[in-house]
Amino acid sequence: MTLFDHLKTHTKRVEAFLDAELSTQNLSVPLGAPDRLVNAVRHGALNGGKRLRPFLVQLAADLVGETEGDLVCVGAAVEYVHCYSLVHDDLPDMDDDDLRRGQPTVHVAYDPATAILAGDSLLTHAFGLLADERAHPDAKVRTQLITELVNGAGVGGMAGGQMRDLEGERQGYDPDTISLIHAMKTGALIRASARMGAIMANASDDQLAKLTKFAEAAGRIYQLSDDILDATKSSEELGKTAGKDAAQGKSTLIASHGLDHAKQVLGTELQTALGLLEEFDARADLMRDLVTHFAQREA
Amino acid sequence: MTLFDHLKTHTKRVEAFLDAELSTQNLSVPLGAPDRLVNAVRHGALNGGKRLRPFLVQLAADLVGETEGDLVCVGAAVEYVHCYSLVHDDLPDMDDDDLRRGQPTVHVAYDPATAILAGDSLLTHAFGLLADERAHPDAKVRTQLITELVNGAGVGGMAGGQMRDLEGERQGYDPDTISLIHAMKTGALIRASARMGAIMANASDDQLAKLTKFAEAAGRIYQLSDDILDATKSSEELGKTAGKDAAQGKSTLIASHGLDHAKQVLGTELQTALGLLEEFDARADLMRDLVTHFAQREA
Repeated sequence: MTLFDHLKTHTKRVEAFLDAELSTQNLSVPLGAPDRLVNAVRHGALNGGKRLRPFLVQLAADLVGETEGDLVCVGAAVEYVHCYSLVHDDLPDMDDDDLRRGQPTVHVAYDPATAILAGDSLLTHAFGLLADERAHPDAKVRTQLITELVNGAGVGGMAGGQMRDLEGERQGYDPDTISLIHAMKTGALIRASARMGAIMANASDDQLAKLTKFAEAAGRIYQLSDDILDATKSSEELGKTAGKDAAQGKSTLIASHGLDHAKQVLGTELQTALGLLEEFDARADLMRDLVTHFAQREA
Repeated sequence: MTLFDHLKTHTKRVEAFLDAELSTQNLSVPLGAPDRLVNAVRHGALNGGKRLRPFLVQLAADLVGETEGDLVCVGAAVEYVHCYSLVHDDLPDMDDDDLRRGQPTVHVAYDPATAILAGDSLLTHAFGLLADERAHPDAKVRTQLITELVNGAGVGGMAGGQMRDLEGERQGYDPDTISLIHAMKTGALIRASARMGAIMANASDDQLAKLTKFAEAAGRIYQLSDDILDATKSSEELGKTAGKDAAQGKSTLIASHGLDHAKQVLGTELQTALGLLEEFDARADLMRDLVTHFAQREA
């Protein structure tokens, strides 16, 4: 099986989990779920995403060893947080995006107030998934996973990255700021995904440290390729509004140093990432393929 | 010491905890906290609130017995969630309120995007507090607390209540819908507070059930008195915009059944609440005083 076969199989498992989990019945504790909010949450979460973060949880765990927990459940929690961030980032008060994966964004399909609540709800219930015994039989592990997700999503991670990005739009960026925004806005959750997978498989401190550095490099690679796609592809090819960075005068690495430089940095980062996996055996092959794909993806 | 002496002492402890906890240093893991977001979070959380929910956590625990955990830390987590909900509910896309406890709301002091991120951050870090060993030495208890907070804040609780309230503004309300909105929007988090306190003190199933029912009644009482204050007091007296329900044509119980009826319901609810505490001894006196205060408060 190729990377894409594995990813496809895994995506289906995650989709099935999300579809079952984000039901009126499950979300009704304790006082009943309003249909409109359930539907908005589902619109924000069940939109054909590639579910790369849950896949990263799975691959990081597989690379380390066995787990007693449910990696799909834990991956889904990360995906809830990713989806919440998309719903909120797309809001008119934020990046004001009408289109996401070829579909109207939640505030367009519903309204901004509902989109705010849908994002809040996804964020809240992400922690519900991780607190549940299904995630891992050991409560201590569950609290470790929650701490990792908080760090990935919070002020020192994703939310702080979005804040710095909004500030940068007004104040301009220097290359260091751009790197920091990438690391926080996209990297922190990718980093958390890898760490959560490793923790699920009871990784040693050394393995955890290696995988953390690997994930940080993978995050930079993912964001860089995203910027390159934004600059070089059409909205139709991407299924979302393309050329936004340039249209908003956003000083990504491409704007400040040119497309060739960005591609060169991408190549260097890929070598760094692969180097960090050197000590792992063939169990790391899928992870090697994944990060290589991050660097070379076309959409 | 009277109820207010106890509340005052407790409020100071919670304030000190929030002030110390919501620092740049604490919020910087893993990649550094942007000042603007830290300041907005602090604006949303350190605004002179009464900290009634943390007090409820404390009283519910005290009523049951001793705890090995830190009730202020757990109460602060509930307060983060309460504050996040105020920050988001005040947004222009939601209730559009400029004033909160006599101060400009977060989106007025900063901007809507920052307010969205500040609310998201408070919600995220609430779960960080509960996952931390400080909250309780037993990780199993910590995951139970997290589940309670998710239920209080999520689609079947507070977020769902705000959704139903927004729907009601457009579609109109009947008295059952009004009760349900109250129970979800305000009641669910009060209910969670009492349950979390009881769980911290290792309550029996019977005690937990009694305190749950008590808290549900207390929540109804709190919301009813809030509506009565909104209808009868000035903005100056309340430190927030008064008369909003009527101005927005919001069909509260007062609008549909009149002020006298609302006051009568309030009295009945208070008797129900006190009845549920009957089996508890003098350790429940402060809780009796608190719910009586909820019914009779003037601001």
